[in-house]
Amino acid sequence: MDYRTLCLAPAGTAFRLDKRDPAAHNSFSGRADAQPEIDAQLKRMGTFQEKLYAEKKRSLLIVLQGIDAAGKDGVCWHVLKGIGPQGCHVAAFKVPSEEEKAHDFLWRVHPHTPALGTVAVFNRSHYEDVLVARVHKLVPEAVWRQRYDVINDFERGLQLAGTTILKFFLYISKEEQLKRFAARLDDPDRQWKISASDYTERAYWDDYMAAYDDMISHCSTPHAPWYVIPSNHKWFRDLAISQIIANTMDDMDMQPPQATVDVVEIRKLYEAEVAKAAADGEKAGKAG
Amino acid sequence: MDYRTLCLAPAGTAFRLDKRDPAAHNSFSGRADAQPEIDAQLKRMGTFQEKLYAEKKRSLLIVLQGIDAAGKDGVCWHVLKGIGPQGCHVAAFKVPSEEEKAHDFLWRVHPHTPALGTVAVFNRSHYEDVLVARVHKLVPEAVWRQRYDVINDFERGLQLAGTTILKFFLYISKEEQLKRFAARLDDPDRQWKISASDYTERAYWDDYMAAYDDMISHCSTPHAPWYVIPSNHKWFRDLAISQIIANTMDDMDMQPPQATVDVVEIRKLYEAEVAKAAADGEKAGKAG
Repeated sequence: MDYRTLCLAPAGTAFRLDKRDPAAHNSFSGRADAQPEIDAQLKRMGTFQEKLYAEKKRSLLIVLQGIDAAGKDGVCWHVLKGIGPQGCHVAAFKVPSEEEKAHDFLWRVHPHTPALGTVAVFNRSHYEDVLVARVHKLVPEAVWRQRYDVINDFERGLQLAGTTILKFFLYISKEEQLKRFAARLDDPDRQWKISASDYTERAYWDDYMAAYDDMISHCSTPHAPWYVIPSNHKWFRDLAISQIIANTMDDMDMQPPQATVDVVEIRKLYEAEVAKAAADGEKAGKAG
Repeated sequence: MDYRTLCLAPAGTAFRLDKRDPAAHNSFSGRADAQPEIDAQLKRMGTFQEKLYAEKKRSLLIVLQGIDAAGKDGVCWHVLKGIGPQGCHVAAFKVPSEEEKAHDFLWRVHPHTPALGTVAVFNRSHYEDVLVARVHKLVPEAVWRQRYDVINDFERGLQLAGTTILKFFLYISKEEQLKRFAARLDDPDRQWKISASDYTERAYWDDYMAAYDDMISHCSTPHAPWYVIPSNHKWFRDLAISQIIANTMDDMDMQPPQATVDVVEIRKLYEAEVAKAAADGEKAGKAG
């Protein structure tokens, strides 16, 4: 099945996360079962990326959002590896700097949008400005509420310039988040990932869910859809995202560019070189 | 064997490419035979990259140089894929822009050096300024000649700031280049790669070889060695480069960072959350 159908948040409808199952998965039974299929999708992604790069007429922007421990970094490490570092740029957006705060909220993300032929990945994004900014009342409601339109207009402008946009919301349950926090506590090699804010932010769980619902309802558009990825099972998350990226790139149907030279003329240059190499070889043979 | 030994250009010696065999390979017989070993090295690279990123105390700079069709892009697509796009930046340096030409030759490369925790790849590099600049007499000899010291000082400064530097020269024979040009001519999907300059540059082959010899002789240093990779066989090139990168990163012996929080205190927060989740569950159970 095409996971775009399963995961799409349809444009123009009131979306509610609590109607989706974060533990959903399809007929695969687990990581071992799904891995060959994931590997096949990663390979497809790589093939399409080379075509995108050669064609240099369009670009791809992948946006990742999700609560702490939802797996954004995991996707970057294990799914986006299908897309190599050549012509791919991952931008991680953390707490804005003083300079960034002195500008409109799109100012810091715009420089990281993909050039023609390339892929850009936003690990967190401009959507933080309708999420953390809303939950922690960093700006008044009137301000974050008008940002939905500003975002839709911005993404529409990118799309008109040749950028295909895929937005993935990694959906985990509150119980799954706690399990992942436990795994960090129990593994000395991963304790550096622990932050006290993991727990203080968790107290705002319901506020975040409401903010996600509104973000998805307002900003899943035909030109930049939100896909809600059931992410309790990391293997299903990886499978769904890799397949959605690969299928989307397949649909883009990239074509090799036309030769910029007269191939007949170049073939003459080539044949002159072959003749020269043969003459040099003969000379070397006689000398030897 | 450790291919660093086979490929190293020793510091402080007069290096000559014509003493090396561009078709060299080791006991493997071909791509099919070597691929499992290449895949294993790519996997090691990925594991070490995650450690480098977590540690955030050091960085890695990989420089690729080689004549047209030597395989720089091939290495970016098929070897550097072992390093994912998260925390890896590939910078390709083409003909300098007017703005770039108005600055010292390191001005355009410096912004692309790797941040702590990350990898940067230069697909062509500041070495173009002692190669094409010399061969085509873009600057007087006195100017390009003093650049060797400027480069060594620059690379020394990067190393002191925590950057490990690996420089790969992809060495192919003149015959092999012609074979690769033929492959471009014969494949309609690759004709867009053909440039008339492929053939005009080939006329300067001996000048380029002399420029490479001098570049390697002057700039293979203990802190930033040049490795000369026999690249007629693409599979051996991929094997040698992936193994050298993986072994170098292994020697860096990255350590997970210390936790920045009091783990005992955090465990209390965790246990409070578990108790709360259990109480909520019981409540839900009674309600249900």
